Amino acid sequence: MEFTKGHGTGNDFVILPDPDGVLDLTSELVATICDRRRGLGGDGVLRVVRAAKHADGADLAGEAEWFMDYWNSDGSFAEMCGNGARVFVRYLVEMGLAVPADSALPVATRAGLVRATVEGDAIAVEMQRPRLYAASAAALGGLTLPGTAVDVGNPHLVCPVPAGLDLAGLDLTRAPDVDPTVFPNGVNVEFTTAGAPVAGVDAHALMRVYERGSAETLSCGTGACAVAAVALRDIDRETGTVAVDVPGGRLTVTVTPNSCWLSGPAVLVATGQLTLPALRP
Amino acid sequence: MEFTKGHGTGNDFVILPDPDGVLDLTSELVATICDRRRGLGGDGVLRVVRAAKHADGADLAGEAEWFMDYWNSDGSFAEMCGNGARVFVRYLVEMGLAVPADSALPVATRAGLVRATVEGDAIAVEMQRPRLYAASAAALGGLTLPGTAVDVGNPHLVCPVPAGLDLAGLDLTRAPDVDPTVFPNGVNVEFTTAGAPVAGVDAHALMRVYERGSAETLSCGTGACAVAAVALRDIDRETGTVAVDVPGGRLTVTVTPNSCWLSGPAVLVATGQLTLPALRP
Repeated sequence: MEFTKGHGTGNDFVILPDPDGVLDLTSELVATICDRRRGLGGDGVLRVVRAAKHADGADLAGEAEWFMDYWNSDGSFAEMCGNGARVFVRYLVEMGLAVPADSALPVATRAGLVRATVEGDAIAVEMQRPRLYAASAAALGGLTLPGTAVDVGNPHLVCPVPAGLDLAGLDLTRAPDVDPTVFPNGVNVEFTTAGAPVAGVDAHALMRVYERGSAETLSCGTGACAVAAVALRDIDRETGTVAVDVPGGRLTVTVTPNSCWLSGPAVLVATGQLTLPALRP
Repeated sequence: MEFTKGHGTGNDFVILPDPDGVLDLTSELVATICDRRRGLGGDGVLRVVRAAKHADGADLAGEAEWFMDYWNSDGSFAEMCGNGARVFVRYLVEMGLAVPADSALPVATRAGLVRATVEGDAIAVEMQRPRLYAASAAALGGLTLPGTAVDVGNPHLVCPVPAGLDLAGLDLTRAPDVDPTVFPNGVNVEFTTAGAPVAGVDAHALMRVYERGSAETLSCGTGACAVAAVALRDIDRETGTVAVDVPGGRLTVTVTPNSCWLSGPAVLVATGQLTLPALRP
């Protein structure tokens, strides 16, 4: 089985080319491939299938050639993954499967059509516009940090770190406690602080994220969008561009009246054949 | 740059074929390759060089064709790694670089000549005989667990879990505290309990390990040898065979009068080309 591995700001993926949709991919196999020590390792699998050849992509085949069949590392499905989509587009372009046009490149996903643009080392994808909808709080090691609940298709809680506390010093080895009445399905929690001024953007935020059901991670695309929307609100803006520094690098988020563009580096690091015992006849 | 990835009971390695010793491998490059999210990921790198072509292997070139140039994931050197040597030999055999003989296959390492045997899915390597040398203790979350200090070329502290405590329930997210006068350079700490009887061996131990300067890991070859030696002492034996279950699988350790054989599965999971930006011209 052919593979490519790539990452976007430290969110890493195993890409499986399967243009005709013939791979017999199962949850077990995805989990085996994503196992960081007994497999190849990754936050998820991106299967590259022609939209016309996948049941979930066929409706969009007239608008997008390729369907991003995204699987989480535990073998479950996810509708969409911002950093995953950026790495997916990098793969399409580097392999010559798509040519970056003046207009945006469309990709079919389970969340519908996603547009992407390629600008040198950066790839941007269009996400849904973050919606701020409630005040809440996260408890962490005896501290209670007020924050803002944000819907980016998945739930987020953005908590500014109070003056006198150091973002880098927060202990995120355990999950923050949140209010289950506000977040019945759990929540991704972002801790933020303002960064030094950056030219060409309206605001600059540093963030660390504890992902729902997972752990602290190096990056979270929807989390960066949520943090950017809160940073803009704090300067009384509805739209604008925010540099968001995650532990894995810098993302640039542009909130528009109707959507939100997530931009940043996406690189391919290896390509070859999987020879896992689970794949052998 | 060509690579193969493989693991032995969950200890994983990136194997770099370099028969003529021409790769310009640096600590930075090793650390980049071993980065689990921004690189390929691994506990270490095994460069495969002809003994005659490597400064540290040339003296052994008359006795072994291949030198295992082992690097830790942080880019430092290590003299020897039991699970790494088992994966190294799997690679030699699968790639046709060595033919398993009736007698043991010799491999050159920085710790001298290491013998290996291939028995189907299992590969065994000869390690140094563990030497029990002191009583000490590890402190963990308010508990003090007495144990035995063991030298296997590197230092170990083997602590049986007292009756009433559950091995699986121990919190190893933080390093156990040890006596710095006994272990001035730190120590790998194994927590053990007896397993159900296994046919064909003299004892059966379950172990979890906290590796010095690292974290809890899925496997530790020298740790398994240390645990086996303590299990044999506890049944008043100097030599014998012990099944040691680590979180990553089962190792079988045979302590002989002069050495110690570490045996278990070693598998290759992927092969291909590294395309990391750091490698591009």
